[in-house]
Amino acid sequence: MALSESIRAVSLKNNSLVIIDQTKLPGETVFIELKEMKEIWDAIYMLKVRGAPAIGVAAGYAMYVKATQIKAQNYADFYSEFKEAKDYLASSRPTAVNLFWALDRMEARLKMEKDKSIPGIVSALEEEAHAICTEDEKSCYDIGEHALSLLKPNWGLLTHCNAGALATAKYGTALSAMHLGQERGYNFKVYADETRPLLQGARLSAWELHEAGVDVTLICDNMASIIMKEGKIQAVLVGCDRVAANGDAANKIGTSGVAILAKHYNIPFYVCGPRSTIDLGCKTGNDIHIELRPDTEVTEQWYSKPMAPKGVKVYNPSFDVTDNSLITAIVTECGVIRPPFTENLSSIF
Amino acid sequence: MALSESIRAVSLKNNSLVIIDQTKLPGETVFIELKEMKEIWDAIYMLKVRGAPAIGVAAGYAMYVKATQIKAQNYADFYSEFKEAKDYLASSRPTAVNLFWALDRMEARLKMEKDKSIPGIVSALEEEAHAICTEDEKSCYDIGEHALSLLKPNWGLLTHCNAGALATAKYGTALSAMHLGQERGYNFKVYADETRPLLQGARLSAWELHEAGVDVTLICDNMASIIMKEGKIQAVLVGCDRVAANGDAANKIGTSGVAILAKHYNIPFYVCGPRSTIDLGCKTGNDIHIELRPDTEVTEQWYSKPMAPKGVKVYNPSFDVTDNSLITAIVTECGVIRPPFTENLSSIF
Repeated sequence: MALSESIRAVSLKNNSLVIIDQTKLPGETVFIELKEMKEIWDAIYMLKVRGAPAIGVAAGYAMYVKATQIKAQNYADFYSEFKEAKDYLASSRPTAVNLFWALDRMEARLKMEKDKSIPGIVSALEEEAHAICTEDEKSCYDIGEHALSLLKPNWGLLTHCNAGALATAKYGTALSAMHLGQERGYNFKVYADETRPLLQGARLSAWELHEAGVDVTLICDNMASIIMKEGKIQAVLVGCDRVAANGDAANKIGTSGVAILAKHYNIPFYVCGPRSTIDLGCKTGNDIHIELRPDTEVTEQWYSKPMAPKGVKVYNPSFDVTDNSLITAIVTECGVIRPPFTENLSSIF
Repeated sequence: MALSESIRAVSLKNNSLVIIDQTKLPGETVFIELKEMKEIWDAIYMLKVRGAPAIGVAAGYAMYVKATQIKAQNYADFYSEFKEAKDYLASSRPTAVNLFWALDRMEARLKMEKDKSIPGIVSALEEEAHAICTEDEKSCYDIGEHALSLLKPNWGLLTHCNAGALATAKYGTALSAMHLGQERGYNFKVYADETRPLLQGARLSAWELHEAGVDVTLICDNMASIIMKEGKIQAVLVGCDRVAANGDAANKIGTSGVAILAKHYNIPFYVCGPRSTIDLGCKTGNDIHIELRPDTEVTEQWYSKPMAPKGVKVYNPSFDVTDNSLITAIVTECGVIRPPFTENLSSIF
């Protein structure tokens, strides 16, 4: 597992949470060490650390960092201070499921260890936080292995947004096979959609692939059709935020358009994500709520001068749903799942 | 023909060429009066006036403005000074066919009037320049009428780039039906793709439609799929830079992707342009050369901070070709042309 540590989004060092400040990318690569809960809250809120799995890992380490700072001499006092910090961090991104999941997991471990000495508890929490990180890393690695089995050396690959190492403990989901392929001489030619409005493809995917030595080319979102037509792309790999029981997959806005183009040009379209992304309680993509985000992301952010008329209406959905009929396979740590998705997705649970 | 004069890209006033400085849009609406050939050359070169037909109109007026300034007392001296200015302006955008076409037309008129007095010649050149403008306006109006016959009140319409009044003498090509519909109470809901990298949709189409009172909503290019899926779009109208004999149409990068989405969602896709855009000498889209433009348009322009990693490769084609199989109809001033295009396009010549 030789991926450069220079793209390790989250880690633990000297009892501090260490993250790459992703708001500074790609201009500067700045690792920041965070000890105070207020700093960590801000880092999550300000998207200095982003990507559901990476936020979960950060939350686990944050609770361990907090544990090392608690002066309480008994479990009740320790728990009370721990719980206060946990609730505080949970308020940093109110819709981030992985955040709550990791915080709950840390609290559960604490409760399990209540009979231990304080140093014993702190040590158990360190173990739990590392486990969250290691499990995510393992899951991403396995996703990469399974996805790699679908690809051939020298292929051109297209991705959208950032489902990469920066969004996870390591490797990423959609980008995992690209990182593993790089280590094994696959010589992929990767194209990264810039991914308007927030440019995660240009700022983050292009950066991490470039940093890892992958042959990556940045394009605007509207150039996907021409590169497919020109024969530059042999497979599309994207991440997912939520997959319904029938295989409909919600992901960053624009993903469904890329899937339609891939189908038109007969290019396989793979959705990559951990099994935890599959929500069997959600029957179809119609049940997935699409978040609308502020107009200014489209009209102002990143720009040095006005690029849209004042007062113009803007529609800015942050996700779209890709119909299962457009998806060649869904790749999880459990393997490659092909249609019929309703049957085959439920079989891995 | 009641379209607001506030979006008149090119006109003549007090023997000056008057243009909207499109590099200042949408932040400021600045009309500039140009008398010096050096200023006019700069305005064309710097894209203060852009869009093939608008450049042609500007070139015609520029040659008339020059004619009013020539002090020569005989035809030979007059012609020599005129020709020098013409050759100078022709160097402002070396690939702009309409620029050469308009300059040649003005020179031809001059030669035709060689036996007239100098004031008579100047007056004829004014007439010719106005004719270039009026013919383009009429052609755009007719394109709009024909396109409007394909649309119904209250429809949602999507467009890409700027094939609007700002690119022509008036009305535009793809946007003409939207402007005419606005005058006639069609109540269209227009969606404008922002059109990366140069944002002509956000900066120009959204501006001119908003200025004309049209209900326009700006989206990022990658949002076209979701608005089609949500039933917001009943027809797509785009312009064209060149149409091959078989109907394959070159237009701003991203157009072919929009066409593929429209086909997927069963939405009619209309290509609008003057008959002069149809190049019967060009058999198919494969014969159309695609210009590659500088990386910095994608990685830097418009942006206040780095949005792509330093040194990353960029692919930046400025046009793509939409396959004729994706086009519902091609709309020119001669009417609505439907498949089979090879047969039906040649019939209008």
